[in-house]
Amino acid sequence: MTVGRGARLADLPLRDDLVGRTPYGAPQLAVPVQVNTNENPYPPSAALVADIERAVADAAATLNRYPDRDAVQLRTGLAEYLSRTTGADLGVDNLWAANGSNEILLQLLQAFGGPGRTAMGFEPSYSMHPIISTGTRTAWVPCPRTADFEVDVPSAVATVRDVAPDVLFLTSPNNPSGGSIAPADLRQLLDAAPGIVVVDEAYAEFSGQPSAAALIDAYPTRLAVVRTMSKAFAFAGGRLGYLAAAPALVDALLLVRLPYHLSSITQAAASAALQHADETLGSVARLVHSRERTAQALRDRGFRVLRSDANFLMFGPFDDAPAAWRRYLDVGVLLRDVGIPGFLRVTIGTDDENAAFLAACDAVLATAGERSEAQA
Amino acid sequence: MTVGRGARLADLPLRDDLVGRTPYGAPQLAVPVQVNTNENPYPPSAALVADIERAVADAAATLNRYPDRDAVQLRTGLAEYLSRTTGADLGVDNLWAANGSNEILLQLLQAFGGPGRTAMGFEPSYSMHPIISTGTRTAWVPCPRTADFEVDVPSAVATVRDVAPDVLFLTSPNNPSGGSIAPADLRQLLDAAPGIVVVDEAYAEFSGQPSAAALIDAYPTRLAVVRTMSKAFAFAGGRLGYLAAAPALVDALLLVRLPYHLSSITQAAASAALQHADETLGSVARLVHSRERTAQALRDRGFRVLRSDANFLMFGPFDDAPAAWRRYLDVGVLLRDVGIPGFLRVTIGTDDENAAFLAACDAVLATAGERSEAQA
Repeated sequence: MTVGRGARLADLPLRDDLVGRTPYGAPQLAVPVQVNTNENPYPPSAALVADIERAVADAAATLNRYPDRDAVQLRTGLAEYLSRTTGADLGVDNLWAANGSNEILLQLLQAFGGPGRTAMGFEPSYSMHPIISTGTRTAWVPCPRTADFEVDVPSAVATVRDVAPDVLFLTSPNNPSGGSIAPADLRQLLDAAPGIVVVDEAYAEFSGQPSAAALIDAYPTRLAVVRTMSKAFAFAGGRLGYLAAAPALVDALLLVRLPYHLSSITQAAASAALQHADETLGSVARLVHSRERTAQALRDRGFRVLRSDANFLMFGPFDDAPAAWRRYLDVGVLLRDVGIPGFLRVTIGTDDENAAFLAACDAVLATAGERSEAQA
Repeated sequence: MTVGRGARLADLPLRDDLVGRTPYGAPQLAVPVQVNTNENPYPPSAALVADIERAVADAAATLNRYPDRDAVQLRTGLAEYLSRTTGADLGVDNLWAANGSNEILLQLLQAFGGPGRTAMGFEPSYSMHPIISTGTRTAWVPCPRTADFEVDVPSAVATVRDVAPDVLFLTSPNNPSGGSIAPADLRQLLDAAPGIVVVDEAYAEFSGQPSAAALIDAYPTRLAVVRTMSKAFAFAGGRLGYLAAAPALVDALLLVRLPYHLSSITQAAASAALQHADETLGSVARLVHSRERTAQALRDRGFRVLRSDANFLMFGPFDDAPAAWRRYLDVGVLLRDVGIPGFLRVTIGTDDENAAFLAACDAVLATAGERSEAQA
């Protein structure tokens, strides 16, 4: 049933820089409490599922035809949503959409990065930023965060001036640590950066900070605000990332996008989901409330918890985070070990999931106590 | 409603090699007879639409969760379909899927092309091969076809030995000319090529030639067979391209694919469409029949028509193909001018569309006669 099994990856003429690599991705394990990939735990409502079903059935009737290459209806809906929720005055020409924000990031680097160019980011942050940068042969310059995983703005401004990256990645809120960048700080970084500044706002709806979208008019040649419907919209399975920027920047991405990259079905389903924005944002408010309660419960247990404006919390310290990750897994809770020594990340789940997570904390702490490990 | 209008593309720090480019894509015009993008003119049956609707509704209920990153169910269905229709004995590990075959081509070039590497193809052919090659900074080496737009195998073998491309693109059938490569010729080229050989079989179901998939076991480290559901499956709007190759070659693509690139909805809809393969292949037989009738009707009118194993025909000669394209458009028929002097391409449509196209030919010929232009 499988041909060509004799060949091994080492027999193939793979690019040198890929040799020895392993594919990116969190383990997809069947565990009772999956709080590892920052998904929204609340599934779409029955009304939303019905609307998606209807929209997709309409689109399916003409699936023999290519999709609208420019996704005008979807982009119009995204512009309306973003204008309404950020106060920026955005039109369809300010928006672009792709199969997840990863594809938006890829297109940005294809247009503005590449060989001989440099991208910079403040680590630890979203690991796809360096992966997609190096994948497009853009030199990656990591810049460290403070001990609290924040961006120290005066020092960051000096580094940006010094490195002069072609593409600067900022994250607000940051994944995996959770903190946001205040607008005044963002302006300082935009003033210092000579190239494109990508503000990755994947978790923006969970944050009280204003969106960088309000700054597009002031920085039209440089600011690219990247969003996703994966988190706040509970649409991770639908794969819809989007960009807000000046029309000229959208035009630049048209030069590198694969034609017909976004299916009719994706366009229809995402447009339907946008119609339910108010309902979905209700789940966001609930998750923000749970985040604060869970952070307090972790602190009550003696953990250090990083300030988070997102739908997850980084907590620790652990003497051995990979070993701790395994102990949580053993009691049915799948956390994320993002590779930061001493810390693990937990996604805020349903009330039941959060309770199960805290019960797991107690169980793990008890075991750790028995082992007399240092904990908190 | 649109911010940042003041900035122009020229004000942005675009990569030098993109400056002055225009986005790829056929004009999307509202014309009565659209026979320009090689779509299947037969829309999905009501039963297929209902199955897609059901499958998507199931997937929509858990859209808050990320999709299966490895698309196992869909790849299993693709392996079953391809094994059944090509005689190759393929399993899930031989298959890979992405958002259109363009994304498969991109992943192949990311894994095996890039700076310092070379890709080669026989032109005229599918224009995305050089576009995606140069987009990944892979040097593109075009090799000419014969006057009949076929590959002259002895000369091609010599050129392949000489150039030693890291990635060799073959198309069978070729777009836009329509001819296939016979298995014996394909073997000669595979024996001569030192790197990856991509056989683009986007139109294979319309051809009587065997699929290259049967050769994967003989060339496991080199052969990548690329397919799409856009044409035979009438699924252009669904965007599903796929690859058949040895498992190690699939593993190589896992190193460069964007994580979660394929949505739950796409996976569900494409799996549903695969269940209706027999029904869809019925439309293929009908289109093949119409192709032969239309080719004969064109020849009867004095046109030269290239041999085609696909769902389109190249015909000419025209003194001025762009002007002829415009005349067809004026009478409501949208053809494709692929930039080959003297030729236009027509997609085989429904019986009504083919009749309308031939009536347009008569109208255009009559006008041309009045203008005493040389015509056929």
